[in-house]
Amino acid sequence: MADPIIIAVPKGRILEEAVPLLRAVGVEPEAAFSDEDSRALRFHTNRSDIDLIRVRAFDVATFVAHGAASLGIVGSDVLEEFAYSELYAPVDLGIGHCRLSVAEPAALAAADDPRGWSHIRVATKYPNLTRRHFEARGVGAECIKLNGAMELAPVLGLAPRIVDLVSSGRTLKENGLVEVEVIAQVTSRLVVNRAAFKTRPEVVPLVDAFRRAVEVRDAA
Amino acid sequence: MADPIIIAVPKGRILEEAVPLLRAVGVEPEAAFSDEDSRALRFHTNRSDIDLIRVRAFDVATFVAHGAASLGIVGSDVLEEFAYSELYAPVDLGIGHCRLSVAEPAALAAADDPRGWSHIRVATKYPNLTRRHFEARGVGAECIKLNGAMELAPVLGLAPRIVDLVSSGRTLKENGLVEVEVIAQVTSRLVVNRAAFKTRPEVVPLVDAFRRAVEVRDAA
Repeated sequence: MADPIIIAVPKGRILEEAVPLLRAVGVEPEAAFSDEDSRALRFHTNRSDIDLIRVRAFDVATFVAHGAASLGIVGSDVLEEFAYSELYAPVDLGIGHCRLSVAEPAALAAADDPRGWSHIRVATKYPNLTRRHFEARGVGAECIKLNGAMELAPVLGLAPRIVDLVSSGRTLKENGLVEVEVIAQVTSRLVVNRAAFKTRPEVVPLVDAFRRAVEVRDAA
Repeated sequence: MADPIIIAVPKGRILEEAVPLLRAVGVEPEAAFSDEDSRALRFHTNRSDIDLIRVRAFDVATFVAHGAASLGIVGSDVLEEFAYSELYAPVDLGIGHCRLSVAEPAALAAADDPRGWSHIRVATKYPNLTRRHFEARGVGAECIKLNGAMELAPVLGLAPRIVDLVSSGRTLKENGLVEVEVIAQVTSRLVVNRAAFKTRPEVVPLVDAFRRAVEVRDAA
């Protein structure tokens, strides 16, 4: 028998939203998959030809781009940050809704106009995406890469502004920060390794099944 | 009053080992600091002139290198990966003991000799350190950066070998991997921002206090 098809799914918030979609395409993960305390990395499903791996969002893109997973679920933020040419993103899954925004302390925002920026310094997990966005509108963006805790950067003087994912806005508010520019709307996409798409016959029907599951859900 | 001195401490395993050392230098963190479920990023201590931040290990180096924190506690693995010139690492704290090693599947290891390598492909969180280590002994290392779940790389064909932190060796064993070369012994260091070391008079006595606390502990 051929090796099972591997679908890479990000840990955390998106995983919870992905499970109903997986079910809708007929893939029922083993129970441990939804157990955050499980140390396992790879999981079986009701289908012997499909296994799941649970990794960090940035690593989903890496596993799929290199063909170590044939499919993956990953935010458009991560896709745009890496811009891997080996990734094909045929379906917007409509989950993991949020936006990537510039935020700054309320006191700074009161007298600040993003249209007047010519150079900014920001702390972000997305230096490539941020630089590209600002270059396109003639602003030089100096990016300090952080892996988390972006909200600390302005108060400690690491950078006056941050570029971060915003969902409810609660974290910004708790840290006295205000959103001043939306860089991108973010949703999770089904991504496919281009070579696997052409060479593994099981992949195309799976992609179609995800597409149909999204259509059925959105029509309901 | 001047802004408090900020000490950056990494989340997780090293934090637990750092708290007794902080106490030994007279810094008692507020209770939430040791509560993994707390969403707070910044914490007060019994000393009004010292606050703590709790961030990812890689970000400790970034906050201290840019002077957003004056001091930090960080593994020698992270220090060598980034090689920030603004960081001074005066004290080996003797906590967070582990090693950075190359590991591979047992079946590959059985007939493999690291001395014979001329080019290797590895999955790792430490591409800079890994490349530098292998360059120094004439081996080209092609590194695929992962943020976690390194152990999946060999079985899924992302890379035949990994470079990862090894402590008890339990995770490797669970994934059928064998350690074949130790790249570096790792411990946590006290790091200081070079500019803060010269300009903030509170820093030197704090560094001395950490050094003494380590000496006293190791003499016991």
